[in-house]
Amino acid sequence: MTHSGRIVTLLTDFGLHDHFAAAVKGVLLGLNPGLTLVDVSHLVPPQDVRTGAFVLGQAYGCFPPGTVHLAVVDPGVGTSRRLLAATAGGHFFVAPDNGILSYVEKGNEDFRAYGITADHYYRKPVSPTFHGRDILAPIAAWISRDIPIHQLGDQLQDPVRIPVPVPERVQEGLVQAAVLAVDHFGNLITNLTPGHLPAFDPGGPLPFKVLAGRREVSAFHQTYGEGEDGEVFLVTGSSGYVEIAIKGAPASSALGLRPGSPIGVVLGTDRP
Amino acid sequence: MTHSGRIVTLLTDFGLHDHFAAAVKGVLLGLNPGLTLVDVSHLVPPQDVRTGAFVLGQAYGCFPPGTVHLAVVDPGVGTSRRLLAATAGGHFFVAPDNGILSYVEKGNEDFRAYGITADHYYRKPVSPTFHGRDILAPIAAWISRDIPIHQLGDQLQDPVRIPVPVPERVQEGLVQAAVLAVDHFGNLITNLTPGHLPAFDPGGPLPFKVLAGRREVSAFHQTYGEGEDGEVFLVTGSSGYVEIAIKGAPASSALGLRPGSPIGVVLGTDRP
Amino acid sequence: MTHSGRIVTLLTDFGLHDHFAAAVKGVLLGLNPGLTLVDVSHLVPPQDVRTGAFVLGQAYGCFPPGTVHLAVVDPGVGTSRRLLAATAGGHFFVAPDNGILSYVEKGNEDFRAYGITADHYYRKPVSPTFHGRDILAPIAAWISRDIPIHQLGDQLQDPVRIPVPVPERVQEGLVQAAVLAVDHFGNLITNLTPGHLPAFDPGGPLPFKVLAGRREVSAFHQTYGEGEDGEVFLVTGSSGYVEIAIKGAPASSALGLRPGSPIGVVLGTDRP
Repeated sequence: MTHSGRIVTLLTDFGLHDHFAAAVKGVLLGLNPGLTLVDVSHLVPPQDVRTGAFVLGQAYGCFPPGTVHLAVVDPGVGTSRRLLAATAGGHFFVAPDNGILSYVEKGNEDFRAYGITADHYYRKPVSPTFHGRDILAPIAAWISRDIPIHQLGDQLQDPVRIPVPVPERVQEGLVQAAVLAVDHFGNLITNLTPGHLPAFDPGGPLPFKVLAGRREVSAFHQTYGEGEDGEVFLVTGSSGYVEIAIKGAPASSALGLRPGSPIGVVLGTDRP
Repeated sequence: MTHSGRIVTLLTDFGLHDHFAAAVKGVLLGLNPGLTLVDVSHLVPPQDVRTGAFVLGQAYGCFPPGTVHLAVVDPGVGTSRRLLAATAGGHFFVAPDNGILSYVEKGNEDFRAYGITADHYYRKPVSPTFHGRDILAPIAAWISRDIPIHQLGDQLQDPVRIPVPVPERVQEGLVQAAVLAVDHFGNLITNLTPGHLPAFDPGGPLPFKVLAGRREVSAFHQTYGEGEDGEVFLVTGSSGYVEIAIKGAPASSALGLRPGSPIGVVLGTDRP
Repeated sequence: MTHSGRIVTLLTDFGLHDHFAAAVKGVLLGLNPGLTLVDVSHLVPPQDVRTGAFVLGQAYGCFPPGTVHLAVVDPGVGTSRRLLAATAGGHFFVAPDNGILSYVEKGNEDFRAYGITADHYYRKPVSPTFHGRDILAPIAAWISRDIPIHQLGDQLQDPVRIPVPVPERVQEGLVQAAVLAVDHFGNLITNLTPGHLPAFDPGGPLPFKVLAGRREVSAFHQTYGEGEDGEVFLVTGSSGYVEIAIKGAPASSALGLRPGSPIGVVLGTDRP
């Protein structure tokens, strides 16, 4: 038995004041006392599946293969929405079928999802308002105990997907991009990667400008620590996305932008 | 040796900015390096024993028997208030004697509490302002190492109890109930259980109405996801209490209610 | 192999909404699945090295020797600032070289720091914006696996130090002190210890007064629970520093004081 199968991560919108996250952990440890539990976050905004999907997409890949990722942002709890057990890239995922695995699916060709129906694994009685505790936690625990996920239900061809916006050339010389997320420091994480942008010499003038709110951004730094206080600049963040940052200040509130806000890239601006 | 005795949960009002919770964990791990530590919450409002008691009462039962629950909401730290080691339903509890175990005691006929006096287990010197670190944490660690709790002090017959309000028939056809707690989503958790209410057909008209703030609530759903946006409704929550919820909004702020607020149940409203 | 080397604590300014702390934990567990991970705090104010240094200084000593403390408050991430592996009092520390270890160094004559250069331990490719994940986490994991820290780089004689203010006699009968930190309850932690103050009889009049904001404080209690509601008083806190507290209220906002604010001690006020 390897150690790697014994990590379970938790991503929820439960907050940190109530007993909800602890209830889920108690159920997990009751079924597998050897687990290592790691909180990804319990502060996904209530019922915000899109933000949950993004955070999960950034986090899971840092864990060793065999980790079970339990994601419970579940506005439809107790309704007829399906529950999923999935696998991708050697990781396991347990979540409601509402698109919260969209970034995981997008990043893994081997993504497979199963609709959970094996109710002999559930904690009884099942509360219609807390499937995280009564269905998803025990299922995650049993996966950590090496139950094959194809035994949990039938494979699904059509899990719910949240559209992840991709940069688009809307006219000659203009790419429309978008803000995917805002981090704790107020940095704006866009859907642009360096591959979407023309190559440029570090230190030289940029062959493009980024339009963000009412600002034109034409500096690209390697780190958050470069440049002058108050400068708006681009930087490649740790997940590979281009970010818009302001030294010493939160770019989000300064520029009035948030997840979903459009960003423009004007190409060819180095030519007079 | 079983695994189950090696979980210690923590419930405090220490917040998440300071070193306090980590200090307690360091002491626990120094005495029992094999422990699994689980945070219930560190965001109990400062010195709010009543809320701490409620959250602990909801959380502990999800853990396997043998778990040690350390609860430190302690406005009287360093004064002559007693400290308790208790057992109930196969679980262990370590806490100040201020009523924080009231829900636990109420739910378990086998509840027994001992006043901690075995000071050879304390971390020395004991700071008068941090008994959580210097007395309660080492006691919890020693319990996790199978020291019998009756060796920690004399049994107490009169632990402090917080009155937990119960629904009361105040006149013919009118039951007065109360809000026990408000969760992260703004749902109002009342002290009503389905057993306090007349039976009714799901989908049919309710034989009662609930008065909450200035609203009459006459819908009862199975889940938070049913009904229309903005609708006020009743739902049986995951702890067995009836909750008042609003689809897509926090009921607490919308109705102006909070822990302790009165709720009315008007019976017999299906009869013309 | 002892257990004690297998604890890693985390202190960061990452917040609790994003995937950052989980990413660091995933890397740690990937390299050492047997680790016990303990959060000290992820709510150090963004880039506030001074507060991070204080919280780390209070926390680490409660853990058993052999613990590895990972501290990532790193405004200079990706710039030429150095990264440190250090040892003091039997503990290990991994952090940027920006003064965050100042309290640790001050408290331990055996403090030694090494500038990390052993890049074969790094997670590749190294993101210039997330050295916590790609350099510091793997280094901490390898230290937990007993790699000697002198193999990680050359010893440094001049790690960055944050000046920790010390009480100073500015004129006959007047000592100038300062607020070091404010805790979750609003208590003001000063840089005074009982040794800085004249001896006095508990219960008797104080032979000194403390000037805090516009208030004169002339009561010294043993605990937070003594005195009357609203009274401003002194108390020796659990870290050995004298604190200024108000019963039932946060002293910080009531007195308008914060980290760095000056405090005065007027000596000899018991003589007429």
